[in-house]
Amino acid sequence: MQPAFRKVVIFGVGLIGGSFALALRKAGAVGEVVGFGRSATTLQQAKQFGIIDRMGEDVAHEVADASLVLLATPVAQMADIFMRIAPHLGAHTLVTDGGSTKSDVVVAARTNLKDRIAHFVPAHPIAGAEQSGPAAALEELYQGKKVVLTPLPENSKEAVARVRKAWELCGAMVSELTSQQHDEVFAAVSHLPHLLSFALVHDLAQRDNRDQLLSFAASGFRDFTRIAASSPEMWRDISLANREALLQEVKRYADELYVVYQALQNNDAAKLEEIFSLAREVRSAWTQQ
Amino acid sequence: MQPAFRKVVIFGVGLIGGSFALALRKAGAVGEVVGFGRSATTLQQAKQFGIIDRMGEDVAHEVADASLVLLATPVAQMADIFMRIAPHLGAHTLVTDGGSTKSDVVVAARTNLKDRIAHFVPAHPIAGAEQSGPAAALEELYQGKKVVLTPLPENSKEAVARVRKAWELCGAMVSELTSQQHDEVFAAVSHLPHLLSFALVHDLAQRDNRDQLLSFAASGFRDFTRIAASSPEMWRDISLANREALLQEVKRYADELYVVYQALQNNDAAKLEEIFSLAREVRSAWTQQ
Repeated sequence: MQPAFRKVVIFGVGLIGGSFALALRKAGAVGEVVGFGRSATTLQQAKQFGIIDRMGEDVAHEVADASLVLLATPVAQMADIFMRIAPHLGAHTLVTDGGSTKSDVVVAARTNLKDRIAHFVPAHPIAGAEQSGPAAALEELYQGKKVVLTPLPENSKEAVARVRKAWELCGAMVSELTSQQHDEVFAAVSHLPHLLSFALVHDLAQRDNRDQLLSFAASGFRDFTRIAASSPEMWRDISLANREALLQEVKRYADELYVVYQALQNNDAAKLEEIFSLAREVRSAWTQQ
Repeated sequence: MQPAFRKVVIFGVGLIGGSFALALRKAGAVGEVVGFGRSATTLQQAKQFGIIDRMGEDVAHEVADASLVLLATPVAQMADIFMRIAPHLGAHTLVTDGGSTKSDVVVAARTNLKDRIAHFVPAHPIAGAEQSGPAAALEELYQGKKVVLTPLPENSKEAVARVRKAWELCGAMVSELTSQQHDEVFAAVSHLPHLLSFALVHDLAQRDNRDQLLSFAASGFRDFTRIAASSPEMWRDISLANREALLQEVKRYADELYVVYQALQNNDAAKLEEIFSLAREVRSAWTQQ
């Protein structure tokens, strides 16, 4: 039997791209995996770890007969890759990505893929991890995790179904949103919490008595600030990429905080309890999907 | 050999009080433990679990010859207990507490213990847990955990040393702050994060699309909001008890958030990276004591 994807080309063979390749391999769903990356060392590691069969040399040649191309680099590098692959995409070559913002990736894709835009089905795998690089790649990374597709009006049903299939073969649960919906949702449930956590630690970090303060921080602080240890470069890029939606969220949060502030200032015990109770109720009912 | 504390009287035999008793027992440091509580059922459970030797009936009688009295009830009930024990404290009976705010407890103690205030050495064991009640009590709860004493000017050195000894026998690492220092420190590293986490979930909870939003929330959200599942009543009381310091912290945080907002609005990549980097550096260097 032919594998579902004869040839997969991956740009960026780290956590996201490497895990994608390993998962497709495990599912017996890929014939050959070719990797591109910015450093020969990384690509050699990826080959050693069994992520790729070989390093790509000529982009034009490799993407022409690829079944699927995955862009798993930082979002800032994607425009350039779209530009390089655009003229060479085969008639049946599909493209997807692993970026955690979508509107900006779609703009980059439209600008550079131009009339080949229908080949691109954007995706966001919700599977972060502390580590990065090929050594961090795991064949089970996407198992039971969510992947959001944000299909474009130009995509054929078949193209969307085939990209969905690839992520499902990795073990993911795939859902669909528009790019704008996607970015609004993730501004609220991911980007805003990261910003708030960074802000808290940054505020403490600037104080004269920060060592004393931190020496008394306990498990509540530990959990609340775990995401403040995330990559500054990555979160700078995500924040700017999703700037509009995130600005709205920060504004909205500042209003909410003012409501809490006022309740406290007015010694309004009932209001505080109402706020905390609703939060507790909703948080307790939530279990990670 | 005589145990370090011949007789210990505990008001509130739940997580904090129960664990204190179990830990002292394990250390062979207590002769007899007598419990008071608001419900006979709870006290019976505490007896069953080996936390107390017997339920107290007459406060006057029990505290007169006690070595140590622990107030481990919600802070709101402490004023009444101070009032009830004040006239009966033996010459050598010391009193400590397990409240997570200190200035308000000290006010309640001064008001009600009056000229017996020197007997009271305030304490805050930093050992929260999700569970409460006698069934949640653990002999190792305080093992390696911090306990902050906030001694009063009236306390003798011996009184402070003896209360310190009791908490150390429970396995805790004891340090000292003034009540005001204590409340400022915990407003910053504990009470503020709780308020911020409650506020985020409360904000999401009020939206029409909250189910959709929550369905895409992942591990970052999970960690950031874990403390939003804390007890609303307890955090209402803590917030109000430490109102002044907490209002200052919320104000300060709102200013910090505005700095982040402006950096984002101005597309100031360097500023965002600077904020995130300092936060990451400080958070990564921090390990829970």
